[in-house]
Amino acid sequence: MHAETGKAQEQPGAVRSGVDRRALIAGGGAVLAAGVGAGVVALGRGRPAASSPPPPSAPAVAFHGERQAGVTALQQPATLLLALDLAPAATSDGRAALRSLLGELTRVLADAAGGAAADPRLRGGEPAQLSSLVGVGPGLAARLGLNVPPALADLPAFPGDRLDPARGGGDLVVQLCAADRWPLTVVAELLAAAARSAGGTVRWTQPGFLPRTPAGTTPRNLFGYKDGTANPDATEAKQWVWGPPGPYEHGTVLVYRRIRMDTAAFAALPEDRRDLAMGRRLTDGAPLTGTAEHDDPDIYAKNPDGSYVIPNTAHVRLSSPRLDSGARMLRRGYSYDDAPDDRGLLFCAFVRDPEQFTRVQNRLAAKDALNPFLVHTASAVAYVLPGAREGGVLGEGLWA
Amino acid sequence: MHAETGKAQEQPGAVRSGVDRRALIAGGGAVLAAGVGAGVVALGRGRPAASSPPPPSAPAVAFHGERQAGVTALQQPATLLLALDLAPAATSDGRAALRSLLGELTRVLADAAGGAAADPRLRGGEPAQLSSLVGVGPGLAARLGLNVPPALADLPAFPGDRLDPARGGGDLVVQLCAADRWPLTVVAELLAAAARSAGGTVRWTQPGFLPRTPAGTTPRNLFGYKDGTANPDATEAKQWVWGPPGPYEHGTVLVYRRIRMDTAAFAALPEDRRDLAMGRRLTDGAPLTGTAEHDDPDIYAKNPDGSYVIPNTAHVRLSSPRLDSGARMLRRGYSYDDAPDDRGLLFCAFVRDPEQFTRVQNRLAAKDALNPFLVHTASAVAYVLPGAREGGVLGEGLWA
Repeated sequence: MHAETGKAQEQPGAVRSGVDRRALIAGGGAVLAAGVGAGVVALGRGRPAASSPPPPSAPAVAFHGERQAGVTALQQPATLLLALDLAPAATSDGRAALRSLLGELTRVLADAAGGAAADPRLRGGEPAQLSSLVGVGPGLAARLGLNVPPALADLPAFPGDRLDPARGGGDLVVQLCAADRWPLTVVAELLAAAARSAGGTVRWTQPGFLPRTPAGTTPRNLFGYKDGTANPDATEAKQWVWGPPGPYEHGTVLVYRRIRMDTAAFAALPEDRRDLAMGRRLTDGAPLTGTAEHDDPDIYAKNPDGSYVIPNTAHVRLSSPRLDSGARMLRRGYSYDDAPDDRGLLFCAFVRDPEQFTRVQNRLAAKDALNPFLVHTASAVAYVLPGAREGGVLGEGLWA
Repeated sequence: MHAETGKAQEQPGAVRSGVDRRALIAGGGAVLAAGVGAGVVALGRGRPAASSPPPPSAPAVAFHGERQAGVTALQQPATLLLALDLAPAATSDGRAALRSLLGELTRVLADAAGGAAADPRLRGGEPAQLSSLVGVGPGLAARLGLNVPPALADLPAFPGDRLDPARGGGDLVVQLCAADRWPLTVVAELLAAAARSAGGTVRWTQPGFLPRTPAGTTPRNLFGYKDGTANPDATEAKQWVWGPPGPYEHGTVLVYRRIRMDTAAFAALPEDRRDLAMGRRLTDGAPLTGTAEHDDPDIYAKNPDGSYVIPNTAHVRLSSPRLDSGARMLRRGYSYDDAPDDRGLLFCAFVRDPEQFTRVQNRLAAKDALNPFLVHTASAVAYVLPGAREGGVLGEGLWA
């Protein structure tokens, strides 16, 4: 079983090969730490010595590669997003501080991913199985004159937004993912210490989680619907997710939205009303015009009375790539639950150009049938740096 | 492997038999959902059909039994605590409302634990692996004249307490535990809906987590130290954790403290200073007077200069059962991470009499070397009801 678990991990860059669409969006839990069965057996036998060797462990997610593993690895069930702000400084000092900080972040993340972390809290249990990404916010890029994609910009305001600036934005955005919550907190603390040493601060943190579903299946969100079905395949990703050939080819842009969902009110609707609002069926995720989850939604199909089968205000219609020259976002969202009245979705999408999100969100904000149940409470955009090669440091292309 | 995983689960009541101490306190992750390997293989084969059957699953934690599984099951890596408040009402109406609510809570928890939940968010993935406990707060017990242990009472104020009432107390306290965060949020939402239907509200929720460690080993807390080493064995638990023979025999009392830890400041101390503050070694959890984790700390051992090996202010000395006629608490704490400056420990201990905690906490509050790094920010006490038998309802003994 251990070898099989190892195969579940996409290597950074894997999306360039001909992998199946579902391989890019596989459900949470695929990179599950193995070896727990061994510990269980030990219990059955009585008193395991406190110094007994740890059980055989699942392989780590490779940190180094052309692209950062936080975008390319199979989606894991636990996430922690955090944003760091750097101290205001003259441009040259700011660039030096950022360069030094990126070196530290690279070291911390590579050590944690590789099981080499010195922190005792990351030892003696299951390996951290960490995957991560580091991105640069548009504000920092402008302040320090960094070499980032020209399209990198904060999102415009959308109707209905109720954004809390303390929960969004940031000079650097980091997403940590793992099989479990525990290592995320420990690694975040190490990153925060690195930021403080560089005169920076933690602007916000946000934990999230997914249901543990079989690899290759689409996880559900807190409305109960499958979320992420229409993700790009490798060819589409090359056009819509990753940068064009050149300095940004292995980078992408993260669009993050913290979306509060009124799950109780939505659940109170009859199921057919919910399906019409979504444009998909709760039961199996199939579009209302299809019979299986991955059937392409036919937004032009009509009922005998002339109305659309997928209604004008259905979420699936308004976010359809057919309305956008085929543009697709790589969505890797997570659910969150910060309080009984503050649960929802951490929308995380990777795009070449944040305009791809803006076009969709303008349509959704205008007439999405889900709007009565949604409030966008935070927003961030960041240029997700290309990966670091072995011995290299994240952000080497920023200074050109 | 599935059968082995099943064996990892203690049945409610197991502590009455001669199980090893470590079987009561086994580390997080023992009840890990199995079957993920199957999904992984599916990915390797290409496109798994969206309707493919879920992988073989780990057995559920039994809900029914003499004692509630939230106390007796192996400790799982994810927890969500929540407190419910009932609407003010005349005594007879209040008793009727509580009785009805306990019936609903029993139904929701039993269905979720048994995999019978109708909610689509609990289906199609790994089984919830839910274990739970429901407890009654002293305020509610007094208000409705409930039949609870006479010792049930709120804790006194301790020096240094900075309690937020909105994060503590409550008419009912529920602890949900599972292999994963996801089902906890869904089940909490179902419980909240049940409470609202009964005119109640959710007073607070608090998520927590543990590192995934091999079963039978002690998990570390965010200071990096093993936490829960000195838990009672089955004989000790009968005296100090569970009620005396009679109506409360299969009940216990939960003492909950939310303790913020300044992990960065503590980590900045040299390791030997940290070990002296704790009275145990960071590396292996052995007491300073011993060589292995489960060696009994010798609080009377002295250095050649006459000072104690385990210092006067060491946490282990001040919480030693030797200072308390051998009284032991069953500790099943979790770490939490709500914000960069709000991380720490959810201290959860099960005792026959909350005085057991009060005596220890009075000593700790007076001179624990850890105090500069700790703030108690919330507190709750609840009578953990005996378990529900098959077809029965939690709280049947409250009305006598």
